[in-house]
Amino acid sequence: MNLQEKDFKYVWHPYTQMKDCETNPPLVIKRAEGAKLFDEEDNFYYDTISSWWCNIHGHNHPKIVKAINEQLKKLDHTLFAGFTHEPAILLAEKLVEITPPHFTKVFYSDNGSTAVEVALKMSLQYWSFHDKPKRTKFVSLDYGYHGDTVGTMSVSGVDLFNEVFQPLFFDSFKAKTPYNISVSEALLDLEDILKNHHDELAAFILEPLLMGAGGMIIYPKEYLEKAAELCKQYNIHLIVDEVATGFGRTGKMFAIEHCDQTIVQPDFICISKGVTSGTLPLAVTLTTDAIYETFYDDYENKKTFYHGHTYTANPIACAVGLATLKIFKDEDVLNKIIPITEQLAKGLERFSDLGVAIRQLGMVAAIELDCQKFSFKDRIGYHIYQAGLKENIILRPLGNVVYLYLPLCLTADDLEFILDKTYKVVKQYA
Amino acid sequence: MNLQEKDFKYVWHPYTQMKDCETNPPLVIKRAEGAKLFDEEDNFYYDTISSWWCNIHGHNHPKIVKAINEQLKKLDHTLFAGFTHEPAILLAEKLVEITPPHFTKVFYSDNGSTAVEVALKMSLQYWSFHDKPKRTKFVSLDYGYHGDTVGTMSVSGVDLFNEVFQPLFFDSFKAKTPYNISVSEALLDLEDILKNHHDELAAFILEPLLMGAGGMIIYPKEYLEKAAELCKQYNIHLIVDEVATGFGRTGKMFAIEHCDQTIVQPDFICISKGVTSGTLPLAVTLTTDAIYETFYDDYENKKTFYHGHTYTANPIACAVGLATLKIFKDEDVLNKIIPITEQLAKGLERFSDLGVAIRQLGMVAAIELDCQKFSFKDRIGYHIYQAGLKENIILRPLGNVVYLYLPLCLTADDLEFILDKTYKVVKQYA
Repeated sequence: MNLQEKDFKYVWHPYTQMKDCETNPPLVIKRAEGAKLFDEEDNFYYDTISSWWCNIHGHNHPKIVKAINEQLKKLDHTLFAGFTHEPAILLAEKLVEITPPHFTKVFYSDNGSTAVEVALKMSLQYWSFHDKPKRTKFVSLDYGYHGDTVGTMSVSGVDLFNEVFQPLFFDSFKAKTPYNISVSEALLDLEDILKNHHDELAAFILEPLLMGAGGMIIYPKEYLEKAAELCKQYNIHLIVDEVATGFGRTGKMFAIEHCDQTIVQPDFICISKGVTSGTLPLAVTLTTDAIYETFYDDYENKKTFYHGHTYTANPIACAVGLATLKIFKDEDVLNKIIPITEQLAKGLERFSDLGVAIRQLGMVAAIELDCQKFSFKDRIGYHIYQAGLKENIILRPLGNVVYLYLPLCLTADDLEFILDKTYKVVKQYA
Repeated sequence: MNLQEKDFKYVWHPYTQMKDCETNPPLVIKRAEGAKLFDEEDNFYYDTISSWWCNIHGHNHPKIVKAINEQLKKLDHTLFAGFTHEPAILLAEKLVEITPPHFTKVFYSDNGSTAVEVALKMSLQYWSFHDKPKRTKFVSLDYGYHGDTVGTMSVSGVDLFNEVFQPLFFDSFKAKTPYNISVSEALLDLEDILKNHHDELAAFILEPLLMGAGGMIIYPKEYLEKAAELCKQYNIHLIVDEVATGFGRTGKMFAIEHCDQTIVQPDFICISKGVTSGTLPLAVTLTTDAIYETFYDDYENKKTFYHGHTYTANPIACAVGLATLKIFKDEDVLNKIIPITEQLAKGLERFSDLGVAIRQLGMVAAIELDCQKFSFKDRIGYHIYQAGLKENIILRPLGNVVYLYLPLCLTADDLEFILDKTYKVVKQYA
């Protein structure tokens, strides 16, 4: 049996109707280098979606490989209660350095879902310590996506992905996304919820500026600024989910940096994906002194935050995190991508011929096809995916939205190739 | 600032009242080898709890280090929908080989919590496809522990750990644990729930034979066998959470192998921790053809299982999983530990002098102190932890239960040392 046959026999892939694999089995990736993945026949594919929005500096970056090899000479792993280790400590220090100044404390976990669950739990518990035990509900955006665990699905938009699981969800309020409606209309809806329900609300959670799974929606920073003010006004926490937007993807280290930072000062920031440059699972929830100090008390007052995962702050993953941040600095990555993001903006102009809607933020571009033209059964995304592979690029549209979610290591030539091929594919279907 | 000071400044540790760190800061672990952790002064500590029950073959095992080094020459990571890779495929094949024959399909995720969330979601969705949309509830044991996400807390025992989060939980039924009551009494309670509520039940979830966080409870296999029969009788799924019990810890590769396997045939088995021998985060939910085929359909019939995590089936972690299983085979680990488990049983006999209750299963031993003697404020566990460190062993009692959760690489001399020191510490407090 070859690898593809074994895959079909044993593996159940995520988000995949396995019957599709009868006719279109998953590609076996044998190796990777920089922005490219290679299959068994050594055909290359540009990793134009950064392997689900996580790769930053390119695959198998020598400095990251070296960091892992060095760490393995010392410590693979240790439990993280009662014990600690250098990679976790130094990474925490660096993360506090690169996030806005009011973020001072680092809580580790394994993936984006758990980073968000940690923030939700800390927020709720904070209010219980402040004699507001009724503040147990959350507000989120109706196109939001924060993960696939029960807690994170509860604060995500209810759609194809998770409708069947609704009986498991806790109650939460969905505010209108500033998408296809005006910012002021969206804000009125949010304010309405906060005004009427602030007594029962712990926090408002959202993806800052760029909403990934909801369809690569990019909304104006004014929405986030005003929403942050509303959260302050009604005294509820603000949680920003930077799992997909962090680490330079939007052109800034974190997406909230596009906003006026005297106004947007979230209580929690959730990060994962890019923190290891797409190498190993690791997640972090950063929070403030105000939150931390509420839990800080004599043991017998029972204010401990009881949450943890076995591999919390895994030393190998933390060592990769440190290497990832070092590359940002040593290779001046945030400056180096400026001309690339400009080239992307310019390159997208030609798509306007095709009658599609275009949006862009940093290294992310969305090309929205007219959804009136296609029905669910047409499986337009599936066909575009297949067509992309033939052109050596990876396109995995979200509904009718074709997108690029580019690694930060891309050269001008790489991008030119990707834009040409993307245009060619989109043209067939637009 | 030294590392310990930086740790205190930046890091919020799991399950930790951070105020305790003022007087007893976490130990900085610098390196590890085999069953030992070493601090900055090169003092050693036996990893007697396998770094939260995950280490199997000892720290920094050369074959595991080599597997990582080799994998890094090829592929760090790739998304796992539409794409696949050798380490995930071969590990899936091996896992199907070593689990009971009716487990045929492998779904990857990141940690124990997500492995359980996947099983809960698959079970619920299965019933919705079989025209039983009301089967959305779960039964679990009242001392059970399945993780810290909202979904897994919902099916765990409500206690100190998660009481404050109850407003977020979905409804679930708690059956009495066969602990301090007879097996037949516990079974009557379970049967009562199943009889009255089977129409609304998706699955029964439990830790097989050994219940970790609930207090290292070891219950008779007869309970699990009869419970499995009840699940069949009332047509609900059985989910076994082998996150902590898998990979030889109980003396068998999986704890369910202690039971009559013609009777105990769970629909889902959740594994994590030991699958990478305590090196990197990885989790797996295995299930049956019957479950898989229910989701297997034409795309337009909307039966896809929408769940995934960015680092699903991370190639580095999967390569470690393969190396872990190879060590089991090459070093005949399951046979090699037989005399060690016998030595452990014998060594525990002397503790009976101390008026404590003793239980053991494979490489796990629990020494239960008389809880009448101590109040919550005495913090007996905390004092035992401190006393253990002075004796070069790691004891982190669960309430009044001191336990050993030993790595499988232990030698007879290691064990003798650990038993002597454990006796010395327990004697001070029993």
